[in-house]
Amino acid sequence: MKLIDLSSVERVCSIGGGPIGAGWAAFFLSKGLSVKAYLHSEREEDSFRSMIDTAWISLEKLTDLVNVNLDLIQVSTDLDDAVQDADFIQESAPEILSLKQDLYNHLGKIVRSDVVICSSTSGLTMSEIQAHCQTAERTVVAHPFNPPYLLPLVEIVGGKKTNPEAVDWAKNFYERIGKVPLVMNKEIPGFIATRLQEALWREALHMVVNEEATPEQIDKALINGPGPRLAIQGQCLAFHVACGEGGMATNLDQFGPALKLPWTRLHAPKLTKKLRDSMVLGCNDMTKDQDFQSLALERDRKIVEILKVQKTNAS
Amino acid sequence: MKLIDLSSVERVCSIGGGPIGAGWAAFFLSKGLSVKAYLHSEREEDSFRSMIDTAWISLEKLTDLVNVNLDLIQVSTDLDDAVQDADFIQESAPEILSLKQDLYNHLGKIVRSDVVICSSTSGLTMSEIQAHCQTAERTVVAHPFNPPYLLPLVEIVGGKKTNPEAVDWAKNFYERIGKVPLVMNKEIPGFIATRLQEALWREALHMVVNEEATPEQIDKALINGPGPRLAIQGQCLAFHVACGEGGMATNLDQFGPALKLPWTRLHAPKLTKKLRDSMVLGCNDMTKDQDFQSLALERDRKIVEILKVQKTNAS
Repeated sequence: MKLIDLSSVERVCSIGGGPIGAGWAAFFLSKGLSVKAYLHSEREEDSFRSMIDTAWISLEKLTDLVNVNLDLIQVSTDLDDAVQDADFIQESAPEILSLKQDLYNHLGKIVRSDVVICSSTSGLTMSEIQAHCQTAERTVVAHPFNPPYLLPLVEIVGGKKTNPEAVDWAKNFYERIGKVPLVMNKEIPGFIATRLQEALWREALHMVVNEEATPEQIDKALINGPGPRLAIQGQCLAFHVACGEGGMATNLDQFGPALKLPWTRLHAPKLTKKLRDSMVLGCNDMTKDQDFQSLALERDRKIVEILKVQKTNAS
Repeated sequence: MKLIDLSSVERVCSIGGGPIGAGWAAFFLSKGLSVKAYLHSEREEDSFRSMIDTAWISLEKLTDLVNVNLDLIQVSTDLDDAVQDADFIQESAPEILSLKQDLYNHLGKIVRSDVVICSSTSGLTMSEIQAHCQTAERTVVAHPFNPPYLLPLVEIVGGKKTNPEAVDWAKNFYERIGKVPLVMNKEIPGFIATRLQEALWREALHMVVNEEATPEQIDKALINGPGPRLAIQGQCLAFHVACGEGGMATNLDQFGPALKLPWTRLHAPKLTKKLRDSMVLGCNDMTKDQDFQSLALERDRKIVEILKVQKTNAS
């Protein structure tokens, strides 16, 4: 298998006009890469450009953007044109298996053979997606965390037909452009971060359906409790450190039996209309007069600051 | 029911020489309160004082400590002496129900009747703890999040015999000293934050036992993915904002069916020796040459910075 040298990657194609596709496009551009974005329809272009502008506000604070400007993003609604000359493909199309399978079937024929194709999928596996692709060996999952232009995590895993060299290439590529790639041992649905988030989310939904907590109480608890710590220490290290000299051993030996307590529910709750409405109303109550745009800007501004705090890690 | 005026609270008693009791003692002192700490044994005093010193490093950065100094903490191993003259009691004794029941039985007789007694318990309910207390009406759960001198959350809930006025009093007291009290609707094991954390933790343990992820991968995923965002936005608001104009409604309508996917495991995993050892070794690998003290200091320094970032909320 012959893949393009990392140092030769200059042009990338970002497939998809949603928040993930736009986020990736902005991020790649901020790293000095030339970006061509494929949109399904010209009607997506305004919202795509608007998301790029939002991302740029944060990227300017995090990156030294010499000789980089937003005009270098080209947009195309012709897939063959969009991937032509691309040295790397980031696919962020809708999460519909048949759609992705057809897309990879086509990409497999038109994308240069030395180019790695990465999927942003959060819920599908590459073994499924690559099923009808004739050049599946260079297809890899590279799942970002929203917002992809800010959060460093990229979970990387190949499918059954993926060549391990393509996985390595992807890992090195993301590392080179300043992401934190996490190569997984196994293909599991939801990867790591989304599974953990989903476990927390299911419990939150159970609490709401049982009227034990409102969405506002849940968020208040997270932001003022585990949240600030989880930005600094993962749950394993947090418990390790909380137990002092005894560390994780003390944690498990002393609190292990608590795993059998009736903490957290077993199944995902049924998503009834009542539960749905409770969640929607709860969130609307919390945001009141603030619109989505200002909430996102506020979120991003603070994540920038937290990332700066995290970067002092090496001290 | 006649409780002491909040403005008259000057002397507090912190029961317990562990990280929670010491953390509360340091926090109360930083707020200008005079503190008497009850320790079970004189042998606890050195580690108690050391934890106070550690907490103080962060408290100095967060609070204006005029006319406050560490010498104002008095230590006693005589419970009756420790609670005498106290205007408020924070109990952080070991999490053993019979021990706490006996303690509250005794406290109920010796603590002034206008004084509220709050428990830091994370796993027991006040209805259980207050069972043998003759003055149970003024006993309340006030559960902090570790480290209690830094993280603002205090989850508050009364037991069956608690007078709602005591719950109100506790809420107002914590608010007055700069905490974020969260009064719960119902007594549920683990309250809100710990339940959410426990759900995430169980899933993490499942991943480790199935060799899908190591503790290091789990922490890497959290710190570089959901962590920085959870310090800024709770999970409800994060999903609400991530879905753009459609908000939580779009989230549930579009991704609701994903709740049925095989994401996250159903039961807590069996805590086998193998799982235990994998967790312990994984954490030791991560920390290598760093000792507990320096890890805790590093954690605290960053949480301080994140709390500063969070305080810009009002903008």
